[in-house]
Amino acid sequence: MSGQLAVIGLGPGDARYLTPEAGAALAAAHALYGYGPYLDRVPAREGQTRHASDNREERGRAAAALRHAASGSRIAVVSGGDPGVFAMASAVCEEIERGPESWRALDVTIVPGITAMLAVAARIGAPLGHDFCALSLSDNLKPWDLVERRLDAAAGAGFVIALYNPVSRARPWQLTAAIERLRRHLPETTPVVIGRAVGRADEKIDVVTLDRASDSPADMATLVIVGSRETRLIERSGRTPLVYTPRAAAGVSA
Amino acid sequence: MSGQLAVIGLGPGDARYLTPEAGAALAAAHALYGYGPYLDRVPAREGQTRHASDNREERGRAAAALRHAASGSRIAVVSGGDPGVFAMASAVCEEIERGPESWRALDVTIVPGITAMLAVAARIGAPLGHDFCALSLSDNLKPWDLVERRLDAAAGAGFVIALYNPVSRARPWQLTAAIERLRRHLPETTPVVIGRAVGRADEKIDVVTLDRASDSPADMATLVIVGSRETRLIERSGRTPLVYTPRAAAGVSA
Repeated sequence: MSGQLAVIGLGPGDARYLTPEAGAALAAAHALYGYGPYLDRVPAREGQTRHASDNREERGRAAAALRHAASGSRIAVVSGGDPGVFAMASAVCEEIERGPESWRALDVTIVPGITAMLAVAARIGAPLGHDFCALSLSDNLKPWDLVERRLDAAAGAGFVIALYNPVSRARPWQLTAAIERLRRHLPETTPVVIGRAVGRADEKIDVVTLDRASDSPADMATLVIVGSRETRLIERSGRTPLVYTPRAAAGVSA
Repeated sequence: MSGQLAVIGLGPGDARYLTPEAGAALAAAHALYGYGPYLDRVPAREGQTRHASDNREERGRAAAALRHAASGSRIAVVSGGDPGVFAMASAVCEEIERGPESWRALDVTIVPGITAMLAVAARIGAPLGHDFCALSLSDNLKPWDLVERRLDAAAGAGFVIALYNPVSRARPWQLTAAIERLRRHLPETTPVVIGRAVGRADEKIDVVTLDRASDSPADMATLVIVGSRETRLIERSGRTPLVYTPRAAAGVSA
């Protein structure tokens, strides 16, 4: 009997974002693996076991889920957001490549989800409306000088930049350092969107300018979008402003 | 009476990807605006009018929807994928900025969806598993030399690159030119994922190498993901290979 492993994106926050495909994959699983707070979002289901692990134990979680699937079970690994964006899908692929040949025979499915940058962007307008990039500020898995090189390249070439994992308890200075780096390339007035806990009850989305962006509180559940030179702000009386990046580059008529 | 406008992401292809939030927003609308093939995906609903327009009439469609909303109606503009990624959310913001003051008073909501690069990535593994960017190859709205500059910057700094709008009838050469440009930076063996019609009945996902990527047929419904130097391929006997980008940069242990 061939086992099955689904790596499932829950989207950000609550069930409004859970696709039918993800819901069906969760329902079909014999066992769920994931970071505790993500598992907590999935309603309990009789006969389905749960295996919570710490946020930083991605390798061990992936390997445990693959071993369990290889025994012939249907296993789901849950991710917040999209599993392919700085989440569990890569960790599972890494373990498949390292692991026994039998893991390559497993039926592996990745179920996409709404990743944080799309949800934060939607809350405020369309800051990702033109070319953009997604960059993790965690230097656990890459040297900081590579982060800086990527920030330079992206800002210099006019990409809007979504910053994932901007801050954690063990990495308190990275967001400030990244913002300082980006100030070399971008005007002080560049709009910056700070999205905290998007899609959850305590959601908070702020728009600041680049020169003030380091002052905003951020944590592991924060996603930051730094505009390009073309990103614009529309003031609206009695409503939050809209932030968007036009479809056309400067000087080209849409 | 204040009008409402929701810009709704249908996700790629069929209803498996439609979030509950998007479904509810579609159900609440008095009228739907969109490109015909996207409207065709939404089941008919009594009392709800439909206003189809051509793919290239984004400005006109956005303005018509805003005018209709300003009359006090609940209007939905539908987009394939995510409305904030090379789709209608920016066009709507542009028209709000250009339009009468009353349009700024409208209740505007953007409802995110699964964008094509997430769906294509999920089908093949986790090619977007590390830093990546999304770049439109349409030079209708930006000069080609800017596209080249962004390709150079992204590939040079090690981003995986998702190419949107790679080809259209009016733009037959852009994908080939982009691939040729990327060959200056990346090894011939770099994995390239060609995703056509993802999430639809005629879906086709191919993995090729960079030196052969120009030979693959592509059209407007194609999304191309070009790996970085670190993107890997896992062969599996009897199954399609997995393509993924490790979470850790080269030389850093995960």
